Amino acid sequence: MAQSQKPKFTLYHGWSSSASRKVRLTLGEKGLAYDGRVIDLRSFQHHTPWFKKLNPSAIVPCLVLENGKILVESNLINEYLDEAFPNPPLMPEDPIDRHEVRRWSKYVDDVCLPAVQKPNWSKSMEPIAKKWSDKELQEHLDAIPSQERRDLWLRMARNPFKPEEIEKALDVLQDMCMKIEAYLKKSGGPWLFGERYTLADINVAPYVFRFEEERPGKLAPLTRDWWARVQQRPGFKAGEIGGYMFDVKRGIDEAMPEPKE
Amino acid sequence: MAQSQKPKFTLYHGWSSSASRKVRLTLGEKGLAYDGRVIDLRSFQHHTPWFKKLNPSAIVPCLVLENGKILVESNLINEYLDEAFPNPPLMPEDPIDRHEVRRWSKYVDDVCLPAVQKPNWSKSMEPIAKKWSDKELQEHLDAIPSQERRDLWLRMARNPFKPEEIEKALDVLQDMCMKIEAYLKKSGGPWLFGERYTLADINVAPYVFRFEEERPGKLAPLTRDWWARVQQRPGFKAGEIGGYMFDVKRGIDEAMPEPKE
Repeated sequence: MAQSQKPKFTLYHGWSSSASRKVRLTLGEKGLAYDGRVIDLRSFQHHTPWFKKLNPSAIVPCLVLENGKILVESNLINEYLDEAFPNPPLMPEDPIDRHEVRRWSKYVDDVCLPAVQKPNWSKSMEPIAKKWSDKELQEHLDAIPSQERRDLWLRMARNPFKPEEIEKALDVLQDMCMKIEAYLKKSGGPWLFGERYTLADINVAPYVFRFEEERPGKLAPLTRDWWARVQQRPGFKAGEIGGYMFDVKRGIDEAMPEPKE
Repeated sequence: MAQSQKPKFTLYHGWSSSASRKVRLTLGEKGLAYDGRVIDLRSFQHHTPWFKKLNPSAIVPCLVLENGKILVESNLINEYLDEAFPNPPLMPEDPIDRHEVRRWSKYVDDVCLPAVQKPNWSKSMEPIAKKWSDKELQEHLDAIPSQERRDLWLRMARNPFKPEEIEKALDVLQDMCMKIEAYLKKSGGPWLFGERYTLADINVAPYVFRFEEERPGKLAPLTRDWWARVQQRPGFKAGEIGGYMFDVKRGIDEAMPEPKE
């Protein structure tokens, strides 16, 4: 944390989680200090009873406010932060553009997140899950509140993603990068919606980071320049996005101890 | 349309579509006039090339503005309408409450929409789809841009929802109604977020309507009173929500002619 204020928030997050990275970028851009609690996703900390008491959806990130209110869903946390701490503003002024930023963020969540999970989980979760006995697997699955997540873990344990599935997922991220190029062409830059850096830029940035790691050098010209600019934002440094396997390892090393009840 | 102003919008919608109903309720609450174009979902009008040119996602509702801009996604259309036409305001003032309205609307979309599709599609789509030959089925599937929708049509045609699946889906809607009860208890009413009628009330209303049709008389006391109040809103009448099979039939009778290119 580079910020100097007294922390207002506690952020439960994963270093390698794209959704957590989005929120760290927004906190960084706003210059908001926070107490970070690192959740080790690989040891299932987010599926433990104490975390599910905090957040029944059992997902990161999860932002706890000073008054104890708990916010989840990265796009909606970011929109909260922008409304509660308006400087600098991270949404366009025009209602049509605001609609389009929300639609873009929903696309990133609905389409790009399931895509990035394939290379990510293959690297970080599969080596662990495939070693489980059937009994261990069942215990792990029983702790997961969402069918979608249960399916993912079951796949990692018994039927991991094939290389062609991972390539197809990376094609989805490549298509995302082409959409960024189209936005930049239309707006004239320097950001997706023109002169103002917005949540549209922030919410997609962690996915571009992962795409660049997996298929380096493939960004189209406007997107390449945009991406260089994103990485020069002060908020980007504060967001502490590292190489994927570096951040997975960091997540293990820095995992918070399980709180005593 | 009870409104008297000159229409500002063209709304492509389905009478029986819950997402379309949400947007009609918001237009009604704001007193905004619109040209309605009824899309017959049963004859696949939303999968025709001319409609996909308008909206590549091939879903209703779809709101076309005076300047030609096309908005999709019912929650996000409603938030646009609230920002562009602020009277009466349909979002709370407090940023935390605003976050929670968005999260509630996302829950309705992610959880209640897939649930309501089971009884709805069994009634309206299954009788049609099951008559298709394999060749006809394939032609229909090829026109659908989303895997999720292809899966739904494939199920309707060859492996329709079983009664126990439909009951389980209605349990999801019953759980939604219990959440409404909890909100009303917490806020003290008369609306989910207190004194102000908001998008949280509007976005869930079509789902409560369907639940009441399928399992009449099951609403808890606060929810029953809230539901009576919702139906007395002037915007509710303008939204023209009819019985499900009545609206399916109305959708066929009033379907717009395919435009000549």
